[in-house]
This record gives sequence, C-alpha cells and structure tokens, in this order.
Amino acid sequence: VSGCVSDAVQAVYRVAVSAADLEARVESLLLEQTVEVPRRALEAIRPAVSMVGRVTGTATDGDSSFRVTLEYPEAAIGSDPAQLLNVVFGNSSLQPDVELLDVSVPETLARSLGGPGHGLAGLRRSTGVEARALTCSTVKPLGISVEQAARLVRDFALGGLDVVKDDHGLADQAFCPFAARVRACIEAVECVAQETGHSTLYVPNITGAPRTLLERARIARELGARAVMVAPMLAGLPFLHELARGELDVPVLAHPALSGAQRIAPLALLGTLFPLYGADGVIFTSFGGRFSYDRETCLRLVEELREPRAAIAPALPVVGGGMTVDRVDDILAAYGVDCMLLVGGSLLEAGEGLVERSRDFVARVRDYPSQP
Amino acid sequence: VSGCVSDAVQAVYRVAVSAADLEARVESLLLEQTVEVPRRALEAIRPAVSMVGRVTGTATDGDSSFRVTLEYPEAAIGSDPAQLLNVVFGNSSLQPDVELLDVSVPETLARSLGGPGHGLAGLRRSTGVEARALTCSTVKPLGISVEQAARLVRDFALGGLDVVKDDHGLADQAFCPFAARVRACIEAVECVAQETGHSTLYVPNITGAPRTLLERARIARELGARAVMVAPMLAGLPFLHELARGELDVPVLAHPALSGAQRIAPLALLGTLFPLYGADGVIFTSFGGRFSYDRETCLRLVEELREPRAAIAPALPVVGGGMTVDRVDDILAAYGVDCMLLVGGSLLEAGEGLVERSRDFVARVRDYPSQP
Repeated sequence: VSGCVSDAVQAVYRVAVSAADLEARVESLLLEQTVEVPRRALEAIRPAVSMVGRVTGTATDGDSSFRVTLEYPEAAIGSDPAQLLNVVFGNSSLQPDVELLDVSVPETLARSLGGPGHGLAGLRRSTGVEARALTCSTVKPLGISVEQAARLVRDFALGGLDVVKDDHGLADQAFCPFAARVRACIEAVECVAQETGHSTLYVPNITGAPRTLLERARIARELGARAVMVAPMLAGLPFLHELARGELDVPVLAHPALSGAQRIAPLALLGTLFPLYGADGVIFTSFGGRFSYDRETCLRLVEELREPRAAIAPALPVVGGGMTVDRVDDILAAYGVDCMLLVGGSLLEAGEGLVERSRDFVARVRDYPSQP
Repeated sequence: VSGCVSDAVQAVYRVAVSAADLEARVESLLLEQTVEVPRRALEAIRPAVSMVGRVTGTATDGDSSFRVTLEYPEAAIGSDPAQLLNVVFGNSSLQPDVELLDVSVPETLARSLGGPGHGLAGLRRSTGVEARALTCSTVKPLGISVEQAARLVRDFALGGLDVVKDDHGLADQAFCPFAARVRACIEAVECVAQETGHSTLYVPNITGAPRTLLERARIARELGARAVMVAPMLAGLPFLHELARGELDVPVLAHPALSGAQRIAPLALLGTLFPLYGADGVIFTSFGGRFSYDRETCLRLVEELREPRAAIAPALPVVGGGMTVDRVDDILAAYGVDCMLLVGGSLLEAGEGLVERSRDFVARVRDYPSQP
C-alpha cells in the first residue's frame, strides 16, 4: 500500500493459509468483504452495480501465511464511517485466519471523512509549546475523590506539565462525579496559572453511550475545557467521527482502551483509522513499557500519524503505556520531539514528592536537544 | 462464574503464563483493570475509595495457560455501559496474553442496563410464530438496486419466510438509497400480505455514526418498519444500549460484524453483553457454516441467550453464517425450535427459483417436530 493511493479503498491482510489453498481462500475473502455471496448467487441475481473488489497483490509472509492486498470500490462505502469498518473487516473478523494489517483510502474518502480538525499543530497551539516534545500525565487511580483529583492536577500543574488528562476509567462514578471533577480540575489549573504564569491544559475523559457522552462534552465545554479525551473503541469508532467533525470544537485525544482486542494491526487502527475519523492526538502504548508493541510497530505508527498517507492533517502521537521519567532521553531519541510524552504511574508513585518529580520530568523534556 | 451471581462484576480470563509467573501476572492484571497503577502509587495517593478488585479463582487451562476469575466493585462502573467494557477488557485488551472468556454482572447492574426490551417472546409476537423455529433470509448482495431489493423481499415473502433482513452492508449507498429501499421493501411485504395473507417482517439495517443511525431509525419507523438490525461492534456497543432502552420502540436484531476481531469469547460478547445491552435477537455464525465457532461454543451461547444468568429477558438466537436448506433438520436438532434460522446465499443461488426454494425452507422448518 505504502506511497500509492488509488481511487479504491485498499486493505492488506495477513492470511494463514497454505500455498495450495491460497487462491480459493483469497477468492472467498474477497467475496466476504462486500457481496458476501458465492459467485453462483451473483450470477443468479445480477446486481445493478458490481461491488466485488479485486486482488491487487499476494506475497509470502513467513510459513503458511500470506500478505494479501485487496481493493474495494469506494461506492461500497459511500462516506459512511461504520460501513468503512464493515467493508475492511466486518465479517472477516469472524474468521480467525485473517488479520487486518493496513488500510488506505482514496483522497475523496479521506477528504470526506476529514481527519483531525486540530491535529498536531492545533495541540501545539493549545499548549503554546513550539519546538520541544509535550509533557503529559494522568489523573488517577479510579477511586479518588474530586478533591484528590483536583489536588493531583494542581501538583502536576505546579510541576509545569503541559497537559493533564483524566484516567479513561473516570466516568461519572458516585465517588468522583463528572461535572464536579471537571470544575475542580479546571479551577486547579487556572489557580496555578495565576500563581506561576504556567498554563496547563486539563483534558477531561468523556465516556458513556453517545447521548451521555455528548452531554458530558457539553458540560465540559461550558466549564471551560479546551480539549477532551475519548476512547473510540469503547464509544464506537464511527462516533469519534461524528464528535470530531460536528459536535466538538476542541481537540480530541483518542485513548486506546479495547483497541488491542482486535486482530487489527496498530498501524491500521490507531495509525490510520483513528486520525482519519478525527483524532487530534492518539495515545498509544509504546515499546519499553508494560504493553506489547515492538519498536518497529511504534515507529511506523508514529510516522503514519505525523505524515499521513491520506489527505488529512498530521495528528499528535502521545507516547504512553508505562513510560518513566528516567527514560525520557531514550523515548525522544526514538520518536523525536513531535510527540507528547505521557508519564502516569511513575510520577504518581512520588506521593508528596509529586510536584518535584513532575518538575524533573518537565526539565528532562525541555533539556532534550531539539536538533541533535 | 456459572450459576453464581454475586454483588460484584465477575470476569473470567484465559491468561497465557507459566505457573511460576502466575501470581505476579494475575496481580498486574487485577491492577490494570481498575486502578491502573502499581500498589506503591496506591499507597502514595490513598484513594478515597478502593476500586481494586479481587482474585476469586485460578485454575489450570491446558499447558502454560490459566483460567483466572476476577471480581470488580460495581461502583467502578456505576451503570455506564462504556465503562463496563472498559473495566472488563479495556487496557488488558492491549496485552496479547489475555483473553476474556466470560462476564457476569450483579442483579442491580443487569436491571439497570435492562437487557432485551422485547426479546425472544417479542419477536415471536411480531411474527405470530408460536411453537416452531422462525425462518429468515437476507436482502443482498451489495450492489443491488432498490428494485432488486424489493423483488427479493417479494420473493422471500411469497416463499413464506417469517423475517427478511437487509444485508448489514446495505447502508445508504447511491445505488440503493436507504429511505427508498425501506419504502419499497415494506410495500413488497404489504403487497404479498394482501395477496396471500402471509405477513413477513422486513428488518432494515440501520448503520452509520450515531446521529446518522438515529435518523435512519426514525425514517424506518415512519415508513412502518417493525424491527431493525444494528451491528453493535460497528455502531459502538454502548450505543446499542441507548438505542434499545430509549430511542427505539421495536425489536433490535444484533449483527456480529467486527465482533470476532476481539479476543473476547462469543459467550461473553454475543451471549452476555449484546443482550445485556438490549439486543432482542442475536445473529451468530453457527458451526457447520463458513465460520469458526465449534458446536460446544454455539450451544453454550444459545443457552445463555435463552436462559440468561443475568436478570434480563431471554433473547432470540439467530442461527446464521452459511446455513443451508438441506441442513434444517440438523440445525434444529442441535438448537431446538426456540431460535430463528437464517439462510442467505443458499437461497439466493436459486435465482428464478427463489420463491420455490424459500417455500422448501419454510416447509422443512414447519415440518420439523417441535416435540421429538
């Protein structure tokens, strides 16, 4: 797929199959994605328009496994974000011998879906950070009160962080109600801004079924939130598109909860579809933490976010998943400075020393040479 | 989990780990699901309320694999359908050594989420079918015109089918616009009802991002649709809950597109969560077709739909995924008659003989003894 954007939707799959069975398996995969009937039924019905895609490439991929590239007519999708998911991996997701590795869309579909409305550049503007990497931490764990949440935000802000986001598990639980938390946390960053002149961007997590989520987004905006976080795989990926392109006028950070459950490669889901559907920043679990993506996967994902093949704006890569302060130089050496570093638990362990450790984190990111 | 419903949310995982590493792995899994920080950070922060769950069982499950049962406090979820998904499999979905096998919820949460509003009984009422299995087919393939869709519906209705549903790939594409299709298909079933006295339930597919989907639901209802189909993993699973409990007053058939991509067992996702969130009928890909679930998985899934452990109404199992007319007796012998048989491609191959083959399908289901 790389580099070449045709006027069809392209998808690359890894298919576990023997060479002898490859042709038949690829034929059945091709039919499953759109028409979902045997050729015999197509001949019997003679649809007004042919929606069968075509095979544009097969290559070996290790033992008993092939990389198969299929193209689908854009008309099978229209510009429906749910139908795009369905065509690239709807029924075939139910067949365990198939993984989705990569997706690319034609320019018309990319423009119609729209991509990040703010993106990397917008998140730099929102935080006033021009040349270096951004710093970020998380308000957690689940179980904290509103007062504890606001205290954490205050400490992070005093430590000089650029962004502080809610944990994605903070919804509207009784022990930490949504509106009270957002109000208190925004007050905390405003208070620190008056004291120190440093302005931290607080990003509330908005979750729930769509109507609930929209109501929380409205409350957050009314209370002064200038960005929000959404977990697209919890909320529904097509809903991200609706949010980012219509309901929200502020940047959206996308959280990866539930996204690893798919047999969809991070490049396709987090790197391509999340920003295509409007994520301005994309949080991913980096190599070197407590999750599983390897270095090459992460670098390719970050490249796709910052230099998208689709006709959309670059998005901000947010490097998380168990990052620590003492690894700042290594992380920035790997990713460069066009990213945001998310350090959570490793700061929170400092307890009373949270402000100090946050300052240390900020200093390390500031001191990292932007031109090595 | 089976049989025992406690006042906590229970989840069963398969964890690929050696016996020597089991304890440490289970501890990290437990922390990941709710608080997501190390114990050291918990001690430093002292959250107002403890949201750490507990381990209630571990059992070997083959070589280097364990079944681990965890319980989470209901207060971590409130009654938020997105947060339930997050707690049972949010971040842990990103760790490839973990699969979610089973979920059960306390009675309060089941009642609050509500389950099927119509369920198996409602779908029997909607079709007037009392004692036998229901018959169903699909309007497809993608690429047919409105006229072709209506012709298929007419033929299926003349053949005597109980239910005819749209293919889940039929959205609002230019070659077969949504409102025109729904209008023509409803006219087709009404026309056949006048001619023959047999009333077929036509079920339009509603898809898209939430606002679009709601608009299509509204149009479908205005045009007289008495049930709809939604693919919850495309639309967003929490959105199913909102639809079924608020926006819609008709039964919802849930389609499994994208649902197999998850490392979530069909019992947990299709058998437990889909009906908990309001699906009245659940389409699944049965053994014996072109998909992968084995017989035991399918039987356990059907049992859970019809006799839910949660305090919700039974849902209608819809048996699909490559079923054929000549296998009707086998299928009903396996599942009994409290189900709906979905036969798509195998009917559509009949071409000009579609009415006849539909009649054959209906006759076989009618003739199957309800008391063997």
